[in-house]
Amino acid sequence: MIQNLVPNTSIETHVVLIASAASKKYGKLEQYLFTDGVKVNWKIESQLDAALKSGMVSTTALSMIGISDYILNNQIDGTLVIADRHETIAGAIASSYLNCKTFHLLGGETSGNIDNKVRYANTFLSDYHFVATKESKSRLELCGIAPELIFQTGCPSLDFLQSSNMLDIVQITEYFGGVGLSVQKLFQGRYVVVLQHAETTSDLDARLQVRSTIDAIDKLSIPALWIWPNSDTGSDEIIREIASARESGKLKNVHFERNLDPELFISILKNSSCIIGNSSVAIRECSLLGVPAVNIGGRQNNRERAPNVIDSDYNFEEIYETVSMQIKNGFYKPSKIYGDGHSGQRISNLLSSLL
Amino acid sequence: MIQNLVPNTSIETHVVLIASAASKKYGKLEQYLFTDGVKVNWKIESQLDAALKSGMVSTTALSMIGISDYILNNQIDGTLVIADRHETIAGAIASSYLNCKTFHLLGGETSGNIDNKVRYANTFLSDYHFVATKESKSRLELCGIAPELIFQTGCPSLDFLQSSNMLDIVQITEYFGGVGLSVQKLFQGRYVVVLQHAETTSDLDARLQVRSTIDAIDKLSIPALWIWPNSDTGSDEIIREIASARESGKLKNVHFERNLDPELFISILKNSSCIIGNSSVAIRECSLLGVPAVNIGGRQNNRERAPNVIDSDYNFEEIYETVSMQIKNGFYKPSKIYGDGHSGQRISNLLSSLL
Amino acid sequence: MIQNLVPNTSIETHVVLIASAASKKYGKLEQYLFTDGVKVNWKIESQLDAALKSGMVSTTALSMIGISDYILNNQIDGTLVIADRHETIAGAIASSYLNCKTFHLLGGETSGNIDNKVRYANTFLSDYHFVATKESKSRLELCGIAPELIFQTGCPSLDFLQSSNMLDIVQITEYFGGVGLSVQKLFQGRYVVVLQHAETTSDLDARLQVRSTIDAIDKLSIPALWIWPNSDTGSDEIIREIASARESGKLKNVHFERNLDPELFISILKNSSCIIGNSSVAIRECSLLGVPAVNIGGRQNNRERAPNVIDSDYNFEEIYETVSMQIKNGFYKPSKIYGDGHSGQRISNLLSSLL
Amino acid sequence: MIQNLVPNTSIETHVVLIASAASKKYGKLEQYLFTDGVKVNWKIESQLDAALKSGMVSTTALSMIGISDYILNNQIDGTLVIADRHETIAGAIASSYLNCKTFHLLGGETSGNIDNKVRYANTFLSDYHFVATKESKSRLELCGIAPELIFQTGCPSLDFLQSSNMLDIVQITEYFGGVGLSVQKLFQGRYVVVLQHAETTSDLDARLQVRSTIDAIDKLSIPALWIWPNSDTGSDEIIREIASARESGKLKNVHFERNLDPELFISILKNSSCIIGNSSVAIRECSLLGVPAVNIGGRQNNRERAPNVIDSDYNFEEIYETVSMQIKNGFYKPSKIYGDGHSGQRISNLLSSLL
Repeated sequence: MIQNLVPNTSIETHVVLIASAASKKYGKLEQYLFTDGVKVNWKIESQLDAALKSGMVSTTALSMIGISDYILNNQIDGTLVIADRHETIAGAIASSYLNCKTFHLLGGETSGNIDNKVRYANTFLSDYHFVATKESKSRLELCGIAPELIFQTGCPSLDFLQSSNMLDIVQITEYFGGVGLSVQKLFQGRYVVVLQHAETTSDLDARLQVRSTIDAIDKLSIPALWIWPNSDTGSDEIIREIASARESGKLKNVHFERNLDPELFISILKNSSCIIGNSSVAIRECSLLGVPAVNIGGRQNNRERAPNVIDSDYNFEEIYETVSMQIKNGFYKPSKIYGDGHSGQRISNLLSSLL
Repeated sequence: MIQNLVPNTSIETHVVLIASAASKKYGKLEQYLFTDGVKVNWKIESQLDAALKSGMVSTTALSMIGISDYILNNQIDGTLVIADRHETIAGAIASSYLNCKTFHLLGGETSGNIDNKVRYANTFLSDYHFVATKESKSRLELCGIAPELIFQTGCPSLDFLQSSNMLDIVQITEYFGGVGLSVQKLFQGRYVVVLQHAETTSDLDARLQVRSTIDAIDKLSIPALWIWPNSDTGSDEIIREIASARESGKLKNVHFERNLDPELFISILKNSSCIIGNSSVAIRECSLLGVPAVNIGGRQNNRERAPNVIDSDYNFEEIYETVSMQIKNGFYKPSKIYGDGHSGQRISNLLSSLL
Repeated sequence: MIQNLVPNTSIETHVVLIASAASKKYGKLEQYLFTDGVKVNWKIESQLDAALKSGMVSTTALSMIGISDYILNNQIDGTLVIADRHETIAGAIASSYLNCKTFHLLGGETSGNIDNKVRYANTFLSDYHFVATKESKSRLELCGIAPELIFQTGCPSLDFLQSSNMLDIVQITEYFGGVGLSVQKLFQGRYVVVLQHAETTSDLDARLQVRSTIDAIDKLSIPALWIWPNSDTGSDEIIREIASARESGKLKNVHFERNLDPELFISILKNSSCIIGNSSVAIRECSLLGVPAVNIGGRQNNRERAPNVIDSDYNFEEIYETVSMQIKNGFYKPSKIYGDGHSGQRISNLLSSLL
Repeated sequence: MIQNLVPNTSIETHVVLIASAASKKYGKLEQYLFTDGVKVNWKIESQLDAALKSGMVSTTALSMIGISDYILNNQIDGTLVIADRHETIAGAIASSYLNCKTFHLLGGETSGNIDNKVRYANTFLSDYHFVATKESKSRLELCGIAPELIFQTGCPSLDFLQSSNMLDIVQITEYFGGVGLSVQKLFQGRYVVVLQHAETTSDLDARLQVRSTIDAIDKLSIPALWIWPNSDTGSDEIIREIASARESGKLKNVHFERNLDPELFISILKNSSCIIGNSSVAIRECSLLGVPAVNIGGRQNNRERAPNVIDSDYNFEEIYETVSMQIKNGFYKPSKIYGDGHSGQRISNLLSSLL
């Protein structure tokens, strides 16, 4: 994926992992990069304990300090800041305060969460803008950003959907770890995928947010693959609610994974009957894949959608009904609103000419 | 000034000093607050050594951590983030990441520096917007911010110009510290005021930025009061350049002050023949005072101006000529574009009803 | 326990929680303090993700910054630094660098781990020393510390063993959360207690360290209560190894608890047949209780012991044999080497007179 | 100097600058290293504003985080921690908490200040000890440190006194910057050198500490070279007191320098009539040089001394009298208590064999 991003260029790329990307607790990113031949130049171990209320703030602060040190010691000329996770603002601040050229990827979109605040803050701390959609470009122009600084590149994570060889998920069960339902049973027929993060700006606390999803999945007659949430404030609450549901005998039809190889994950998604939760994957990658999606709560509010997405409240019955309807509907026609599969090449060319 | 901001309300206000505001090195803010009867609830000693390139980044990071601790330990409901200094983003991040209501003061303006980036980042991290000018309100609306979240309150620092009793600056020379020309000589006739910060996004380094101003002031036939720059990256360079000019016998006609009581400073401004440099005071407060201003370099680019402001490059002769012209021109007619003297009351009422 | 520490004195005590003590993830300390009527004045959320190698360093660094802010904002005169956990050095550094009087509790002991380094560093950063044993006092005097600055107070955590009303653990099963074997089955006859932290200076990695204990406990014919490890680097590895053992069907005879009310924990200890692992509780509190202990690995090397402790290597068979022998032996005669039950009062009197 | 430290070895040395060593404000260390052909691998810009009370704490904390990142990203095997400045504990903590081999240079000495606390804390956080004097070795052994871990190497900074070509200070006045008395006048006959840091554990505040020295120097009939203090808490106060003395017409006979090339500084010392203040240079380097020294206040209490050192209180008359007496006395016979000029080679060999 990162290889797609910067092929055949004259740029010297430095890959710096921060926050959850630098912690083994949240998956095997470093291992995937190694497999893809991407060298990690530096790791900043800045992830605070996810149970802390101030975890997002202090993780970002430590990341800023570490990135700043790295930029100065390596005479970095420019920084590519991606999207809208809370820690990404660390890169935007360090880079802009140090007078580096700052490039922002995936600005101009809107969603209903702290992500939205961070995405726009990143935009305004940056000098150049690589956006996914036509609507995003217009929105940035309306904000007063000079049109010549905005480039509609599409979203590079969709390149991957086109280029990757789809794996045979039945033959690769040895790649799975995880707990719960066996992988053999999970993949013996139809299945759904669940991926639900804490919605930090909701009035509902994170345990209540996930409870209705747990009940809906529990009632579904088909197996589910549940991917653990990211390290946002509230993720520990979600994990605890799931653990407590399992201890009381629920979710017997569910296989849980901490993280999956991206290639494997895409194969699984592509074959799934529905994706459920509040991940942007449901809206972005699945637009091109045509996979039916049920989007829960406000975390993705206002994000542009293709027809494959139907929204639901944090309500057990509504989630259950919507998922059932989507499974019945089956695959949608692919939409290219978020990218055409050649974004990486465009971004890489732009970086070469703008740096 | 802060008293004006929150009089007669049901809100419990906490005043937290961070960064240079919490360091004796950069003036006597705490003493002024004490004199005004404003209680400082907490100080966060987060100011890095100003000679460091990463000083702005790490100062902001330490401020974020400290503010976050304070918000959580005191169950703070909302945070008022002011304008655009680099450290202010620490308040915006801590408050928004902790799900506090975040209020931003003086958004929607534009200037040509890192300040501009920070101001817009603050806007997008915030929930409510108290703006100074009509143009600012329109600009935020174009950015997609809901009109009902934007309030044109005017700038509260202009309230002070109206309300304060103007001091007799000749009688108050005992308030002065500083070095250089004696205060008696400074105020015996016409004088100018200089206030020039490092322009962090300029290609010119900070010593060269200030050198042309030094030469222009040195050539002027009337005395000058020079206020030391703030703690931005580059301020040490400016101080060093001034010191070196003094050691080589220049600037004999100049009195230097680290910081002045705001009331005193306004009196001095009001009686001055011209303000020179790149401070926003020249553009904002002086619009209502009608004091002629020469604005140097790009730090205030795109900020709305009343007719009292004339721009100059970092060019010794241009600065000298423009200052001479402004002194000759004399006072301008007061303009109310930045506020009508009742902003504090409006803001205080809004905070009461929105919290 | 803290009440014992400072009763009836003229001192104003501030309780500041840092690191794992301020994270819900590592137990309910704050709740216990509340129950005991102890007010927590401030919390510093400084705990890094336990999976990070640099977690101990950065947690300590953030704690230092937060404690320093607290000391300055509250005009603290003195700081009581306790024992030898890695974060405690944050208090010793902040206090000594700020010229506060610094008191160290439980210096002069020796153990085989990073704890030993931290304990002595704390001693030398401090001004006054409250030690538990006669041997500790002599050791500090040999180090050149003036005898009049060292006070043999005993260890205050042993006061609690004397004063607390022992609970009937059979009647209080409702206090338990946890997973695994039911509490009813755990307490229906004899049982052992396991408490094993990562030994950070061992060549063996944390998962291998705990594996032999898992196997030994698995082979034992009597049930076990296993308390989760603290937040040291390596604790996540231990938790993962236990989880993986459980998934593969081991440890069916074990009840797991994250943390227990101290009073309840002491009752359980007092009635247990053996304590197993590398906690200092086995050596200190259990000396007075006379509970048989099996101490595994090098974490407690060189700590003074009463006859109740027998050591074992990280070796499945040795652990199993030693535990079996200790269970057969039964209770030991109580020893007072670590305290006589009146340490809190002594410490409190000393603080009053030295501050 | 650093070349002496590690010549002809199989070790790969990494040089990491932190705190004031990484700030241009406190001298030209980096430039000297460059001149000596020593590569700086990394800089950690961790120096807080010296006017802050918590500056020493937070500088140390930021240094810890940065060093930890560096150690992990470069698979560092061991860390050499030097002496007793407050920031050095950052290296000792990061290294020991990360299970690196930790070597401490110059332990076992005693002095009367926070330095003493830090030196012993560094010792106990370390695994191996390279000490200067016989007395230091005995003291560490009494502290219970195994004799086989302690090596009497001597102090490597004295190697330099032997090896360096002494410069002709009259011919090199172009190397001087600084302010005050001209260098020509300073070196035209006899002169003294002043170097006085803030004594952080004194009851006297830093301005009062330096005032008596200012008065004594002012009264002296021979010129003085005054080197600015380091970045410790209190240094700004000292600088301010000096500035205020100069503004009021004192110290006209003094040349001030921020920092000098070490080689040049040694030449100047070697030719000076007396060194005055509280720097360890007066006690260590000057023991071998035989230069008369007046040591003021308690900062060097208990440090071993050769006969060249006479102590004085913070008392104008006592300082003046003692300096006059020392000037009259002239040079002392060189003493080798702190090193014989071959310490670097010994240390380098030891590192090779112990890593």
